[in-house]
This record gives sequence, structure tokens and C-alpha cells, in this order.
Amino acid sequence: MSKIMAINAGSSSLKFQLFEMPSETVITKGYVERIGLKDSVFNLTVRGQKVTETLHIPNHEVAVELLLEKLIQHQVISSFEEINGVGHRVVHGGEVFSDSVLITEEVIEELERLSELAPLHNPANITGIIAFQHILGDTPAVAVFDTAFHQTMPSSAYMYSLPYEYYENYGIRKYGFHGTSHKYVSQRAAEMMGRPIEELRLISCHLGNGASITAIKGGKSIDTSMGFTPLAGVTMGTRSGDIDPALIPYIMEKSGKTADEVLDVLNKQSGIHALSGFSSDLRDIQDAANEGDERAELALEVFADRIHKYIGSYAARMGGVDGIIFTAGIGENSHTIRARILEGLEFMGVYWDEELNLIHGEEAFINSSFSPVKIMIIPTNEEVMIARDAAAIASQQKVNV
Amino acid sequence: MSKIMAINAGSSSLKFQLFEMPSETVITKGYVERIGLKDSVFNLTVRGQKVTETLHIPNHEVAVELLLEKLIQHQVISSFEEINGVGHRVVHGGEVFSDSVLITEEVIEELERLSELAPLHNPANITGIIAFQHILGDTPAVAVFDTAFHQTMPSSAYMYSLPYEYYENYGIRKYGFHGTSHKYVSQRAAEMMGRPIEELRLISCHLGNGASITAIKGGKSIDTSMGFTPLAGVTMGTRSGDIDPALIPYIMEKSGKTADEVLDVLNKQSGIHALSGFSSDLRDIQDAANEGDERAELALEVFADRIHKYIGSYAARMGGVDGIIFTAGIGENSHTIRARILEGLEFMGVYWDEELNLIHGEEAFINSSFSPVKIMIIPTNEEVMIARDAAAIASQQKVNV
Repeated sequence: MSKIMAINAGSSSLKFQLFEMPSETVITKGYVERIGLKDSVFNLTVRGQKVTETLHIPNHEVAVELLLEKLIQHQVISSFEEINGVGHRVVHGGEVFSDSVLITEEVIEELERLSELAPLHNPANITGIIAFQHILGDTPAVAVFDTAFHQTMPSSAYMYSLPYEYYENYGIRKYGFHGTSHKYVSQRAAEMMGRPIEELRLISCHLGNGASITAIKGGKSIDTSMGFTPLAGVTMGTRSGDIDPALIPYIMEKSGKTADEVLDVLNKQSGIHALSGFSSDLRDIQDAANEGDERAELALEVFADRIHKYIGSYAARMGGVDGIIFTAGIGENSHTIRARILEGLEFMGVYWDEELNLIHGEEAFINSSFSPVKIMIIPTNEEVMIARDAAAIASQQKVNV
Repeated sequence: MSKIMAINAGSSSLKFQLFEMPSETVITKGYVERIGLKDSVFNLTVRGQKVTETLHIPNHEVAVELLLEKLIQHQVISSFEEINGVGHRVVHGGEVFSDSVLITEEVIEELERLSELAPLHNPANITGIIAFQHILGDTPAVAVFDTAFHQTMPSSAYMYSLPYEYYENYGIRKYGFHGTSHKYVSQRAAEMMGRPIEELRLISCHLGNGASITAIKGGKSIDTSMGFTPLAGVTMGTRSGDIDPALIPYIMEKSGKTADEVLDVLNKQSGIHALSGFSSDLRDIQDAANEGDERAELALEVFADRIHKYIGSYAARMGGVDGIIFTAGIGENSHTIRARILEGLEFMGVYWDEELNLIHGEEAFINSSFSPVKIMIIPTNEEVMIARDAAAIASQQKVNV
């Protein structure tokens, strides 16, 4: 038995879950928010009780120290040494990391180099890694990458039709994201279906505020809708997804914006928010559409249309599909969106059940009993994947010593 | 019986075909190239004989005058008055023109306004229109638009997930191109299949140096791969097709290029040319791939992958597909590309016949006899579509007078 911490560090936040392994029991979880800002927030759920405090937390190192001391104070652990390993979510592993890895000085240097590809995320992830390192010293730390699962894509899927030297010199290719989630739900789908993942063709729809669709053949990602960055693919809460690339120079000229300003519009002021004109939250949009708001209806149609078409294209890519998975906030909870997405896929063996589709937030089959293609709701669990990889690599570490 | 001229005017070129209508017989055809440049070329094919001359042709008006005089000289017509109507290909009709239209002063003004959406094409098309007007006076002239066929797309297909005011103020939406070709081949497909087009779901693949895929339901375009401009969609000879839009600011920063320079790379130095590193001509690429060139093989794989996926997504959009059409240079002539594209679509009822697929350049079914989905080669004929619309509108014109 061991205790493994799963960490997701943002620029001013730190989310954590402490797992008992190998049982995968969550002992405690919580988050620190507004690190380095006025009125930082510390939140911990322990034995079903939520504790929230407003404090001054100047940096990630103080956040980590506070977190660990609170665990002792609440008698979750009796000393820092009880933590056997820490797994860190890292957004970008580039082409270097196709699997989780023990964090060494060399690995940190590599992560810093990769920050160029994920300037908003990797530096924050590294800050979290270093904060734990300072406080826990030699406790094995493991990096688990959002991109790693997609490193199995063939070059025909990941290469853009751009000058080849852009790939060689600037690392321009499709990387894909949400990999830990797509991997988790595809493994759960195979278990639910009672079939070896090696023989399955799955399409997983991770639909949260960010959204991506992945084609998973034999347990391996062979194509995914996000690209060089998480902007590409389907319409999202505030992100445009794919657009005609010629629009960027056109918008720059028309609006007088710089390229970076246009990129900011594409990331933060587009998607569902822009189509509806008032919200990026699909629940609000659904309510408004029900009341006859045409722009809200348009937003729903566009959102479903793009995902629907990706399912068709990935079924084509795999020569058919055995299972379709819905996960993350919208995927797990919105039966109306699922219905819109699934409508009209009968020709490829996809039959959904209206009653079962009303289920939300728990693992379930929602296909008709006679449907050749299984349709599943699977709540994602990136934290347990981080804990699993961290536990495996940390225990190996001891053996090696 | 009437004589109708079909015209495609570029910035320094003019292609023409003179039709006898309603038989749709081509009486003569030819082209003028290098207009306004040194050593302009005039080419005419009359009664099976090709005539080519190198001359000085300073502008489109001189080109048109020369063309008509040559027709008299070669006894194709005895006077200018024998031309009953002229149909002009116009690339961009925006949201204004959803069908071909008699050209009036107001129409020309509108085409000039639309030049902003197609700065490379519409001004050249207008130059051709005005040159004929100056010489033929009142002879009815008709504009036939590349975008018109796609005006039936629903808003869920043509709206980008961008700030709504970009649509309202800048006309930013998906327009689609190659419409005259997609319309022609879809009508021919229905005739070949012996079924009313109203009940058919067709996917047409126009694969030339530019390439686009269209979903045609009941004879109407409901989605197409090109977008606001002809850059979007699948990989083309020198165009990138869809890429992560975030790549434009990234390439600008890395390469020091302006947005317009990057756009130029995406239009002219990307696609098959960039992937292979040596040619945008698929015949060259095919030869090199056969000899083991890996980059050529990659170019073929990417080209076929993108089209294959669009077929899957458009089948999903229409709830299945009844016929797949291949047209334009590559679509009509490359059996290896067709095979790569069709491979793995059996799950949706697409079975192709290896022997039949070797046919090229003529109308043919290439599906297996038992295939639920028909697969057709249909040489495109945009000129006859232009002539048909011009003849119809020109004859109506006489009635009105």
C-alpha cells in the first residue's frame, strides 16, 4: 500500500488528490486558488467534510507546504514521508515524451524547452513540480502528459500540409490534448464492453469547456481533433475550433487587430459564447434555445454538427466503430447534446435509447439493445490515471535503488 | 437554335467555348494567355484543327475583339450578331447571388463590391465581362457563380464559431467554391443512377489542383470543404487546407513573416508540394512513391486521408450516402488515389471494383455490382453549365422584350 498525490498546477492554482494505492481510494482532495493574489483560497475535503480558508499564499511553494501541513493537522498523514510519490499533470510533452516519466533534472530542462509549445501551461506545471521537489526532496515525482497518449498517431494524421521544415525546425505538427482522459475512458470502455481493447475501434468525445474527439484503434490514439494547440477541432465554450486559416489575415485587416489579438479572440471570445452572444455554458444555451432564442439554437446546432461530423470521419478512418464514448462535463451530463450528436448515425450501426440517454454523470450504456455500436457515458478520471502512473514509476524506482 | 459563348476570364487569360444550343455541341474552343504581357498566345480549336499564334494582346478588350474576328475568319460565325448570349464564370457571388443572373449595371456594381471577398478572381472576371460588353453591346450576358450552388447550406454548416458581428459586418462565413462543377456532376450522377436527384444523398469529390468535397442532399449542397476562401478543407496541390488556426501567429513569430506572407505560404508553398518537397503534380508524386520516396508516400497518404475523412463526415451529415462522385483532373484520372480514398469505407456500404477503377477520363460506375453505394467517375463540365444558364436567361430576355 502506498500514498500517491496527483497534482494539477495552474499559474495561480493547485488541484490535488491523495490516493491510497493500489486500491485507488481517494483519501482526500482539494485545491488552492488565487496563489500570489489577494485572498488566496485553500480548500480541502477530508472524511466527507469540506474545509475552506482564505489566507495569504504568496507562491506555489507556500501552497504545497500549507497543503502538506494541513494533511498532518487533519490526521490524513502523520509525516511528509508517508507520501510515496507525486504525479504531476504536464500539458505538453512534445515528441519527446510518449509516456509518463520519472522527473529528473534533465526532464525539467526538457519541459522548459517544451514551454515554447505550451506557454500558458507548461511553466505553471513546472512551478508545481519544483515546489513539491523543494519540500518533499527525494520523493519520486512523475510527469503525466496530456499529449503522450496521442504520440501513437501515424504521420499521415499528425503532419500538416505545410512546408516540411516547419515540422523539422519549429516542431509544427498535430500533438493533440486531453490524452489522459481519452486513455482512461477508452480503457474503461473496453472493460465495460468485456472485450480486449486490442480488437476495439472506439471514438471518445471529451466534451467540456475544452472539447476534443479521438479515434482509438486497438487501444491507441490514431487521430484526434485538437492540433498543434488546443484551439483546433470542434467548436468549444469560447474557442473557435477549425476555421478557414485565411480568415486570420482577413480579420486582422478588417478589425485592425494584431495576429496575437486575433488569436486571443479565437481562444477567448469565440465558440459557443460568440454564436449565442451571451454564454459559453451549454446549460444556459439550452435554456435559451428552449425559449426560442435563435442564436442559442444556432450555437447548439453548430456544436453538435462539428462533433457529429468528426464521429463520421473517425469511423471512416478506422473502417467502422465499435463504441462511442461521451465524457467530461457536457458529455457526461447533457442528454440533449448527446441526442443531437447521435441523430442520423444509424447508417453506421449507431442506435441510441431515448430512456437510457437520460442517465447522467455515471457509467452507463445508452445504446439500444440491438445496436451494433455501443454508446457509453464514462465520467473521466484523469487524477486516477496520474496516480496509477506515479505509483507504478515510483515503486519501480525503489526496486532500482 | 442559338450560339452561346462560355467565358472564364483570369487576370491575364481568357478561356472560351462556343456552344450550339440546345444541342450543347461545342463549335469551337480556345484560350488567350499572357494578356498584357510579352508574347501573348492565342489558341483556337476549330473543326478538330488547333491554331496557335503568338501576338501582342495588350488587354482583355483586344483579346475579345481578336477572338471574335478569328471566329469570322475561320467561318465559325459570319457576324458578331450570331452570338446570342455570353455566360461568364464569376468566382464569388457572396450571399447576394444564389443563382446565375443577367448582368446589368447594378450586377456589375455588386460584383465589384464582392471583389473584397475574392480579390484575386472577381476583378479579372469583371474585366472579361466589360470587354465583351464593349464589343457585343446589348447581347445578353450572364454571370454564373462558383459559390451559388452552395447558398443552400444551412446556417449550422456555413457559420464559423466566431464573433457574430464578423458575419454581420465582414461577411465572414463559409461560401464554398467549385459550385458549378459540383452541381454538374451531381445532376449527371442522378441521370446515370436513373433516380430522381431529390431522393439522393451524394458526395462529390472535385479533385484538381484545387480540391473540394461537397455533401449534396436532394440535389442541394448542404456542406462543402472549402470555406470563406478556397484555402480551406482538404490538402491540395500547393494549398494547406485546414490547419490549426493558432499556427499562423506561431509561424509569423518563428519565421519573421507578416500575416500576408504566411497566407502566401499556405496558398502557394504548402499542400502536396510541401509534403513531397518537390512537386504539386500527383503524377510525379505517384512515380516517386513507387520508387520508395518516403516524403512522396507521405504526401499521398495525407491527401487521401483528408478526403477519406471528409467522405465519412459528410455521410454522417446526410445519415448515409447513395453515391460518391470523383471528378476533375485527379478524380477522373488517378485510380491509385481513388483506391486510397475508398479503402476502408465498406462499413458504410462502399465497395469498389478493382478492374473498373482502372477506367479514367470517362463516365463510369466503378463500384462492385453488389455495392449499396454507387461510385462514379464523371468528367466535370463547368462550361456546359455556364452555357445552359446563359442560354436560358438570354432566351427569357428576348421574351421579356
